[in-house]
Amino acid sequence: MRIALDAMGGDQAPGEIILGAILASRSFENIEILLVGDQQKLNTEIKKAEFELQGSKLKVWHASEVINMEEHPAVAVKKKKDSSLVVANRLVKEGKADVVISAGNTGAAMTASLLTLGRVKGINRPAIASLMPNLKGVGVLLDAGANADCDPENLVKFGIMGSIYAEQVLEITNPRVGLLSIGEESTKGNKLVIAAHELLAKTDLNFIGNIEGRDINKGVCDVIVCDGFVGNVVLKMAEGLSSALFTQIKEAINTSLKSKMGGYLLRDSFKILKASLDHTEYGGAPLLGLNGLSMICHGSSNAKAIKNAIKAAIKAINQEVTGKIMKYVAEV
Amino acid sequence: MRIALDAMGGDQAPGEIILGAILASRSFENIEILLVGDQQKLNTEIKKAEFELQGSKLKVWHASEVINMEEHPAVAVKKKKDSSLVVANRLVKEGKADVVISAGNTGAAMTASLLTLGRVKGINRPAIASLMPNLKGVGVLLDAGANADCDPENLVKFGIMGSIYAEQVLEITNPRVGLLSIGEESTKGNKLVIAAHELLAKTDLNFIGNIEGRDINKGVCDVIVCDGFVGNVVLKMAEGLSSALFTQIKEAINTSLKSKMGGYLLRDSFKILKASLDHTEYGGAPLLGLNGLSMICHGSSNAKAIKNAIKAAIKAINQEVTGKIMKYVAEV
Repeated sequence: MRIALDAMGGDQAPGEIILGAILASRSFENIEILLVGDQQKLNTEIKKAEFELQGSKLKVWHASEVINMEEHPAVAVKKKKDSSLVVANRLVKEGKADVVISAGNTGAAMTASLLTLGRVKGINRPAIASLMPNLKGVGVLLDAGANADCDPENLVKFGIMGSIYAEQVLEITNPRVGLLSIGEESTKGNKLVIAAHELLAKTDLNFIGNIEGRDINKGVCDVIVCDGFVGNVVLKMAEGLSSALFTQIKEAINTSLKSKMGGYLLRDSFKILKASLDHTEYGGAPLLGLNGLSMICHGSSNAKAIKNAIKAAIKAINQEVTGKIMKYVAEV
Repeated sequence: MRIALDAMGGDQAPGEIILGAILASRSFENIEILLVGDQQKLNTEIKKAEFELQGSKLKVWHASEVINMEEHPAVAVKKKKDSSLVVANRLVKEGKADVVISAGNTGAAMTASLLTLGRVKGINRPAIASLMPNLKGVGVLLDAGANADCDPENLVKFGIMGSIYAEQVLEITNPRVGLLSIGEESTKGNKLVIAAHELLAKTDLNFIGNIEGRDINKGVCDVIVCDGFVGNVVLKMAEGLSSALFTQIKEAINTSLKSKMGGYLLRDSFKILKASLDHTEYGGAPLLGLNGLSMICHGSSNAKAIKNAIKAAIKAINQEVTGKIMKYVAEV
């Protein structure tokens, strides 16, 4: 299995990306990781990490350009044909790799994959499937931001793709699909959601009906379906609220000597709590609905996040997620 | 000042509603609270609370019917003309009260106020303005659920009404208005939000542009503008995520003797943290844009929540919020 890793994409690239690849190469069998980016820069970083390329699972694949975080996605992707991101996507298109992984400019990563890999027949709108930790484990939410405006049919396809991902990669049997709305009844919601509810009820998905905002982190379902605007707000809010709460907890701990002692005694427990909210645990979000697998990572990804993204990618490839989406969608 | 309180509305009605009125009567000057509901039931509860109506600020106003939590809002409001909710709204319409407060069926409370009080000229869609605690204090989010589908013009009016409420009731000078979207740039968002951004930029509001999900609890702005679908998801998610985090913290505390001791030493600090997330602190959300003031409370409201809703209502009345919205909207 071959993994094309955009080694120049991300706030901490190329250093942490390469370290992530090294970690992955030590943990996972039967893989080859193509580090795509400026050969000279990558070699310098690899040397810094005191890693020996020769005989390892890592290989440098030269690409002369870089797409920055601030660049306009479509413009940059079309202009920079030899950027690490575009080249990494091309490797998948040409069958030289099984997945492309990038922590770079999210819009550009989506555009590059969409333009290079193309959509699965029957899927108009590929979606970002983001993992959401909940009280019972982890679920998947889609779309997390690829499509700000959707139609009811799009939402049905998100349900299908999410269901396949949850079953194959998260190993959840008969995953429960919930439609994010503002009331439990099928008649509650905006026009989009009310129409999507009707369509979802007719599929053979394990559709449990509407869920509400308060259910998102409860784990009442395994797949949360919503449009990309709502999904992106929800995802970023979960991040922001968790971090706001931690700030408050820290402040609470620092109010008195007594509370400081309490915080000290609790520090290991908070670590567990923190880990469960930590995006590096899950690594990357797959862009589903393309003729090839593309994983999009958080811009701030560190080595651990990259390693975990590679882990999820390996699972998705072994389970033939892309092929199963093609097959299922063709049958609908 | 007269307050019409729907004494039969809410999960804990009439007991906690009456206790809230009693608390308010002891805390606030120059008010009279009309407890609207079944005379016999209310008198029994008042007796239970060992409260002496005679000479107090409380008065029972009989209404023979009750709208339940499960009833269809529009149907129930139209059918039950002598329900506590409808009667309480009528008291405002007829000038016998300055505000109506209800913790009952939210949809019915909105419908009753909309049908009874009517809309301010220039406002097509009244909005629920919900208070959102953030790291720097408290802001207001609207619409929190009254309008699932909106047009750009509606969002502009939400900004205006929220700005007036933040200035007059929350005492925030020149409140910053933010538009909830999925990117900071004016071109980011769905069609609705991109169009609303353009319109908001032309008003003389203190419009700071788009904010993202992660900013909601940071306190980067004082008024958060969004449609009622997104607002309701956000509001309920904040509730759900906070409670999920507390569950996790509790579990973390209970993992070992050491962490239990830590939790014990931190207990006072957690109280502060909890209070800041507690909806009873803020009591009620005003339905803005009507010819009269209506406050909608959480279904689970207890006495403290009712007291705080009355407190917010007193401020809104003293600051003539309704009149100011009418005046400002007429000028736009």
